[in-house]
Amino acid sequence: MKFHIMTLFPEMVLDGLHTSIIGRAEEKGCISIEAVNIRDYTADRHKKVDDYTYGGGAGMLMQAQPVYDCWKAVCEKIDRQKGNAAKTRVVYVTPQGEVFHQKKAAELSKEEDLILLCGHYEGIDERVLEEIVTDYISIGDYVLTGGELAAMVMVDAIARLVPGVLHNDESAQTESHANGLLEYPQYSRPEIWHDKRVPEVLMSGHHANIEQWRQEQSLERTRLRRPELYEAYLLANPPKVTGKKGRSICSVLK
Amino acid sequence: MKFHIMTLFPEMVLDGLHTSIIGRAEEKGCISIEAVNIRDYTADRHKKVDDYTYGGGAGMLMQAQPVYDCWKAVCEKIDRQKGNAAKTRVVYVTPQGEVFHQKKAAELSKEEDLILLCGHYEGIDERVLEEIVTDYISIGDYVLTGGELAAMVMVDAIARLVPGVLHNDESAQTESHANGLLEYPQYSRPEIWHDKRVPEVLMSGHHANIEQWRQEQSLERTRLRRPELYEAYLLANPPKVTGKKGRSICSVLK
Repeated sequence: MKFHIMTLFPEMVLDGLHTSIIGRAEEKGCISIEAVNIRDYTADRHKKVDDYTYGGGAGMLMQAQPVYDCWKAVCEKIDRQKGNAAKTRVVYVTPQGEVFHQKKAAELSKEEDLILLCGHYEGIDERVLEEIVTDYISIGDYVLTGGELAAMVMVDAIARLVPGVLHNDESAQTESHANGLLEYPQYSRPEIWHDKRVPEVLMSGHHANIEQWRQEQSLERTRLRRPELYEAYLLANPPKVTGKKGRSICSVLK
Repeated sequence: MKFHIMTLFPEMVLDGLHTSIIGRAEEKGCISIEAVNIRDYTADRHKKVDDYTYGGGAGMLMQAQPVYDCWKAVCEKIDRQKGNAAKTRVVYVTPQGEVFHQKKAAELSKEEDLILLCGHYEGIDERVLEEIVTDYISIGDYVLTGGELAAMVMVDAIARLVPGVLHNDESAQTESHANGLLEYPQYSRPEIWHDKRVPEVLMSGHHANIEQWRQEQSLERTRLRRPELYEAYLLANPPKVTGKKGRSICSVLK
């Protein structure tokens, strides 16, 4: 999968993403991340990319022309490589979009190429957004100084779902949000630390009991910390009513 | 305000945050950002900080000891500076926390010192979290390869609310989420681009009309893109019923 990030701060984006797991995945060739500097495409001879906002208001706005020409250059490059630029989705990273979540990450991880557009200053002229953007996505209900960190977050969340990026395919499936619940507590060596002992069931070697304990802990943690996720989970997974012999999820849902 | 970030990847955090507005704010002295390497505090002679998970499962877990000793060192440093380490909040950046939002950013921006703990690999041993963490916060319902990007997002969102960080105090108040609505569309020079003209009202110089147009656009955009925010806004700001002469927000809410 290829990520193409349109930004005024390409070094920031690349420095932040070349570390650790994502960097290793790039070296392995599972993904590629390219940052294109929007400023390189301005027609202004002083290399300016922003101007005042019509109608007044604080701050500067990124203008249509450099953003549009940068997008055209990225599309031409994708075209040369495989002729599908017309279909390439363009995500504008903005607090004015739908909220990013794990399912959207999974959906986007199936794209061959993905263009991410980072706004800076007060945002971007609406007219160019209307022409090029296919998805308006926000990483959450808070405001950042620019779109770069948000784009990096999306690339990280999407890239780790691309086959081959994580060492162990299991990891992507057992953690928080993969099944709609928060992850259970985890413990590592030593067995006793600060007088706190690892829960006995985890030392038992009894896989079914461990599985059940973890499921109970996930449910309880989700109920306490994210009641709305808990409700949604119960709606999607109604507790089964079973006979005396059957042990079901019911026992946890008192 | 001072941010203390506990991480295995201090360079990534610092590189990503020293750009643009946040970097300038650091130079001005409004904020300081320090990244402390948890690995420097491991008692393991091979500098290892992680181990297998009790009970089985993919991936490695960060152990309690290095995290705890790193936290103690950060607290001692804050103590030496102003003797309030006991009160310093510790945010664990985790998909298992409450979801970060603009109000939480505003609340945290009032702290003098803030410690952020970044997990990596499969997470951190539960016992050390119980001892040191005051806030479990997630930046959204998606999973990242580590806590670093999420911590950077929080620092950015919080830091820009610290007085003096943004050039213009107005900027932080008129944008998306500050009033519970998404921001209206914005336009900059030129007046006509790709045959698209800037909406006439914005060229009129009539401030009350511009204000009303923007409010209408904000409401309509919020209704279309984030219906749940729109409902919440209407509940908190019920439309006023006014006579014929009064123009009220009602006209927008058909």
